[in-house]
Amino acid sequence: MKNRHLCSMEDLSTVDIMEILHQAQQFSRGENWEPERKAFAANLFFEASTRTKCSFEMAERKLGLDVIPFDADQSSIQKGETLYDTAKTLEAIGVDCLVIRHGKDHFYEELLENVHIPIINGGDGCRQHPTQCLLDLYTIWQEFGKFEGIKVTIAGDIRHSRVARSNAAALKKLGAEVTFSGPKEWFEEDYFKAGRLVEIDEAVKETDVMMLLRIQHERHGSPASTDAARYHKEFGLTIDREKKMKEESIILHPAPVNRGVEIDTSLVECERSRIFKQMENGVYIRMAVLKRALEETKRRSGEYV
Amino acid sequence: MKNRHLCSMEDLSTVDIMEILHQAQQFSRGENWEPERKAFAANLFFEASTRTKCSFEMAERKLGLDVIPFDADQSSIQKGETLYDTAKTLEAIGVDCLVIRHGKDHFYEELLENVHIPIINGGDGCRQHPTQCLLDLYTIWQEFGKFEGIKVTIAGDIRHSRVARSNAAALKKLGAEVTFSGPKEWFEEDYFKAGRLVEIDEAVKETDVMMLLRIQHERHGSPASTDAARYHKEFGLTIDREKKMKEESIILHPAPVNRGVEIDTSLVECERSRIFKQMENGVYIRMAVLKRALEETKRRSGEYV
Amino acid sequence: MKNRHLCSMEDLSTVDIMEILHQAQQFSRGENWEPERKAFAANLFFEASTRTKCSFEMAERKLGLDVIPFDADQSSIQKGETLYDTAKTLEAIGVDCLVIRHGKDHFYEELLENVHIPIINGGDGCRQHPTQCLLDLYTIWQEFGKFEGIKVTIAGDIRHSRVARSNAAALKKLGAEVTFSGPKEWFEEDYFKAGRLVEIDEAVKETDVMMLLRIQHERHGSPASTDAARYHKEFGLTIDREKKMKEESIILHPAPVNRGVEIDTSLVECERSRIFKQMENGVYIRMAVLKRALEETKRRSGEYV
Repeated sequence: MKNRHLCSMEDLSTVDIMEILHQAQQFSRGENWEPERKAFAANLFFEASTRTKCSFEMAERKLGLDVIPFDADQSSIQKGETLYDTAKTLEAIGVDCLVIRHGKDHFYEELLENVHIPIINGGDGCRQHPTQCLLDLYTIWQEFGKFEGIKVTIAGDIRHSRVARSNAAALKKLGAEVTFSGPKEWFEEDYFKAGRLVEIDEAVKETDVMMLLRIQHERHGSPASTDAARYHKEFGLTIDREKKMKEESIILHPAPVNRGVEIDTSLVECERSRIFKQMENGVYIRMAVLKRALEETKRRSGEYV
Repeated sequence: MKNRHLCSMEDLSTVDIMEILHQAQQFSRGENWEPERKAFAANLFFEASTRTKCSFEMAERKLGLDVIPFDADQSSIQKGETLYDTAKTLEAIGVDCLVIRHGKDHFYEELLENVHIPIINGGDGCRQHPTQCLLDLYTIWQEFGKFEGIKVTIAGDIRHSRVARSNAAALKKLGAEVTFSGPKEWFEEDYFKAGRLVEIDEAVKETDVMMLLRIQHERHGSPASTDAARYHKEFGLTIDREKKMKEESIILHPAPVNRGVEIDTSLVECERSRIFKQMENGVYIRMAVLKRALEETKRRSGEYV
Repeated sequence: MKNRHLCSMEDLSTVDIMEILHQAQQFSRGENWEPERKAFAANLFFEASTRTKCSFEMAERKLGLDVIPFDADQSSIQKGETLYDTAKTLEAIGVDCLVIRHGKDHFYEELLENVHIPIINGGDGCRQHPTQCLLDLYTIWQEFGKFEGIKVTIAGDIRHSRVARSNAAALKKLGAEVTFSGPKEWFEEDYFKAGRLVEIDEAVKETDVMMLLRIQHERHGSPASTDAARYHKEFGLTIDREKKMKEESIILHPAPVNRGVEIDTSLVECERSRIFKQMENGVYIRMAVLKRALEETKRRSGEYV
């Protein structure tokens, strides 16, 4: 049975994933869908975000949802209210769907049992960011029309990335070949199940998709290995390395980009970059995810809530 | 004559109150009302709030109002602009209705003479919070179908509560029997006019409505009598006390709840709790209050403003 | 060829200006215009504002635009993202028009080449604030029906004002006679091209339009010449000076007003004050500017973006 929440990529089978990608494609081609009655969303972002928050806001409006503004800094969270009570409050007020970003790993676990409206995870701690993962998958599928046999290199700050692990797992399930690249000390034991660690100079020559990750300066205090210029030279996508990439290969990055660190600034908008395309695709993916959540909630209860 | 503003419960006669409760009931049953032309609201919240702000936002959208976002931290209040000039600015720009929460008692007094659009008080200092009072009244009326003879205990931080005094006065006017419960040092002389102070252990056995108030940690610096565990044991609604309540009696709390202080955490969603019901009702009450304000403004001027 | 951006008054010819004023007048008379498809705006305000931000929000809604909320404090700017990448992100997500206020002079220069959606300058550093300038011009034109021969005094903190220079230049181009008034140390060499410096006591007797500027306490650290009472007495519009003004002359101020500094508090809403009228007019001007930007973008590309 489908899950009305979307908290983790592990909630989704490969069939589910492909359904979402197809729906996103329909939205990108102009399909319209609106809920049968006026419906309300709220976006609870407890961490800074431009892309993800604005993308959800756009997706919600394109589906005709009304969005109830929520500002974490001005909320009763400041008076010590729990996330659970905040979510229940919004449910009681009549919100039909919650998108939540929160710095705590698995924040959603305390919500799932008693909150009856769908919860979409907009990013939790260093763990999951399922709509980012889905938009990465969609961008690859849009480019190559398949996952089977596509070579994907996940490069950079794989330890602190919300998407490295779940992207790797999803890509493998879908038939892609995954490798990792980046500083050895950020590569953890369990990554070997998903793919081996390769040097960036080797990776650029082989890969179809160079999936760069953002150095999460705000999440680790180790300045040694993150010294920007040195990192760029040893592990980043330099101008020279880009030249060695295969003809049809593409570059992904979840952004915000640290220009001159993960990638040379001149490559951000180069021909093989799909970085801004990913953002465009994110809106369609989020429309698909929201539609699915509202429809599944309705299917279960005969009503959205 | 009706008042187009709603600043204090004293603005309302018992007839006014009953009209608002009946209108809220109509909205809860699906009645629609929209202003005759596109109308605009703005919510000026100078203090943290989830429930009240989101509830007004929802009520406004359900009435088809457009909401102009206002962020106190990013406003010209930061450059020293007065509340009066801010309100006049929003009026000049074309806003039809202002909801204001402000830490200053009677903040609205300087606005009433020269601001021509309705002002709804969303909470001022330790004084008034009329829509909270109305939603409490509505929840009681919804439950018992009357006020006459209903026993209501207002329990907790009655000194710092925005609603203790005005709830007590309104309930008495409507025919309910009011008592208070809580630390003696928070009980003030003038409360005796509205009702006597009783021990919580006595109150639970007698009352129809246990109306708990929130300990306003952020408003008083006296840690002695607010030590959480001790307060809970002496003055709070414990599991044992709840068991002694009458069969049909209900629990109210304006939230955010200090779980384990005013009320045991397991009781927040117990069968007699109407805490989340109050939040749902708050939307209907605010719809009724906004409709009344806009209609009254129109009646006076032939136009909303 | 028209410019789809509006970054500076220098982007506009006198013909352009008059077109915008006429369009604003049409909007003030109830004309409706909406884009042919659902269109989206975002307001990126990196400095405090009530009037300008709320005015753009109102104008956007009156044109039927959907507004994607953007909070600088909660955005990826906090993670070091550049303004360029933020603007490109919003473009990629599907926003059709950006309004930006930023403390950096000429912030827009890095955006114009590669951002394809229109940029409206909502105020940059101490430089430009074209929609403020236009609404000042509109208010004068509304009053006198012409600019030719109208005497305008720009008085106050001309050095730190975003609008002093561009208002003076635009007014001269349109045929008005400009003079300045205020502390000599704030009057700069190049102002002489636009008009001479006169004593406030002389100015009040001659001028048709007393255009007061706000003392930008937040922009200069020189308390000596800004001592409020002394400033008011030497350079401000006192009750006595107002009495000496010509019968038909009017008072403008961009607000927020420092009451008792630039102007006596009792004059803010006096008969010749157009201060709140300016705010009302600002909405119509911004509607005209947004319509122009969207239409021009469409004319160039066959689509809004």
